[in-house]
Amino acid sequence: MGELLGYLGPPGTFSEEAAIRYGAGSNLSPKAYPTIDRIFAAVENKEIEQGIVPVENSLEGSVNLTFDLLSASSPVQVAGELLLRIRHHLLARPGEDLGSIKEVYSHPQAFAQCRKFLERTLPGAVRTSMLSTVEGAPLLSQKGGKALIASGRAAALYGLEILQENIQDESSNITRFLVLALYDAPPSGSDKTSLLLGLHDRPGSLYEALGIFARSNLNLTKIESRPLGGELGKYKFFLDVEGHRQDQRLAHALEEIQEKALFLKVLGSYPLVPQVQ
Amino acid sequence: MGELLGYLGPPGTFSEEAAIRYGAGSNLSPKAYPTIDRIFAAVENKEIEQGIVPVENSLEGSVNLTFDLLSASSPVQVAGELLLRIRHHLLARPGEDLGSIKEVYSHPQAFAQCRKFLERTLPGAVRTSMLSTVEGAPLLSQKGGKALIASGRAAALYGLEILQENIQDESSNITRFLVLALYDAPPSGSDKTSLLLGLHDRPGSLYEALGIFARSNLNLTKIESRPLGGELGKYKFFLDVEGHRQDQRLAHALEEIQEKALFLKVLGSYPLVPQVQ
Repeated sequence: MGELLGYLGPPGTFSEEAAIRYGAGSNLSPKAYPTIDRIFAAVENKEIEQGIVPVENSLEGSVNLTFDLLSASSPVQVAGELLLRIRHHLLARPGEDLGSIKEVYSHPQAFAQCRKFLERTLPGAVRTSMLSTVEGAPLLSQKGGKALIASGRAAALYGLEILQENIQDESSNITRFLVLALYDAPPSGSDKTSLLLGLHDRPGSLYEALGIFARSNLNLTKIESRPLGGELGKYKFFLDVEGHRQDQRLAHALEEIQEKALFLKVLGSYPLVPQVQ
Repeated sequence: MGELLGYLGPPGTFSEEAAIRYGAGSNLSPKAYPTIDRIFAAVENKEIEQGIVPVENSLEGSVNLTFDLLSASSPVQVAGELLLRIRHHLLARPGEDLGSIKEVYSHPQAFAQCRKFLERTLPGAVRTSMLSTVEGAPLLSQKGGKALIASGRAAALYGLEILQENIQDESSNITRFLVLALYDAPPSGSDKTSLLLGLHDRPGSLYEALGIFARSNLNLTKIESRPLGGELGKYKFFLDVEGHRQDQRLAHALEEIQEKALFLKVLGSYPLVPQVQ
């Protein structure tokens, strides 16, 4: 038996799809958890080898929560990432007819991302929000006039049919997942490093820190500011920068930044994965 | 009758509290909407005068969704902001006893923010996640062993008692709300401007843009990168900078940035509100 990979359940969500795709390249078996903080705790307790959590453009669960948990004094590190293209389908029991759909279940963000389709195709249907895209699946009955907006995986798991494929308003809808572990990844030759940086609140402090990366020709691929522990006027930044923390160029830049910062925590280095799953 | 201020319902959530506090200084009456995109649509249709939506550290609804809707080709502008301190309480029917609580209802993020309290005080209680902090209120019955994690406002609205006050793990928990309208605010002398900036993906492009602000001594109070329409390798940035778009110093900096950027959209200027409600 292989090791476990925790994901945000229930089965049939896009988080499960991410876990299946990531686990396929390893000996990891997906295991569902009810919340993101339980996944962090399970990594810490060594109940699971790794966890995979949504971190950007998420349909299920909270991005902010993932960042808050990463920023705490946790031993959990970032050991990888996965980019998943989100494809929403309208699902129903076999035999159900598009014209007879009176109620649609899904997550609020899935409704928002399929708004134009719903207004055009099902203008009179009631939209009932649920905690996940698949929570409404057990409520669907044959010829009941009910449908679900969820993934293709959900159709297979719950015995549903795809009434209409790819109903999202924009064709490009990508969610980024982070892989969590008690370690990060060794250098692969093409890596990325996630950082948590605390800076003083004065004009130019971020500019100076970014200058250190710019002068070393290190490309930033993400930046996000968050207030520091509710203290208005102090900020922490989540940054992703190309390179591995063991690369000499990045290691030197991090030393230089550390001297100017309130604090600097290296969350982990891991391979760049430009391809979307 | 005054004008309407849309907020993310149901009543009793922290979003309603934000709407009440913001509306108190105006002639605006709060009106609940089921989703953030409905609030945007209601502002666009002039069904409501203004809307108020969570945008950072949100307990209910999605931060990402708010940013995605702001970044679309919408006429909606940012006309103000409000900072609300989140205080979670354990609520139950009058007469209920802390020792007899077997099940707690709330939003997943409220559970995450009260994790230490729950582990210490109610280690055996089942946590049932709902779409909002108050959705479980109708399920509470006297002496039923059930409780809710929600706001003080929810206690008043649903006839519940506070079993334990301020149960969040960290004392500082602030949610930022943005006020939406078809216009922004006139200069007040102490303002902030929200921007959406598209940049080329190359080392230093963000550094150069921030240099323009730094040289003008304009302080950034927020920065967040998001992938541009699913195209990996291109980014857009949400920035907040001190100053009003009509201030000469900021107006010049914005002109200079526009020349170097893929695109620049001024989302709105509005008064700085450093005090937390």
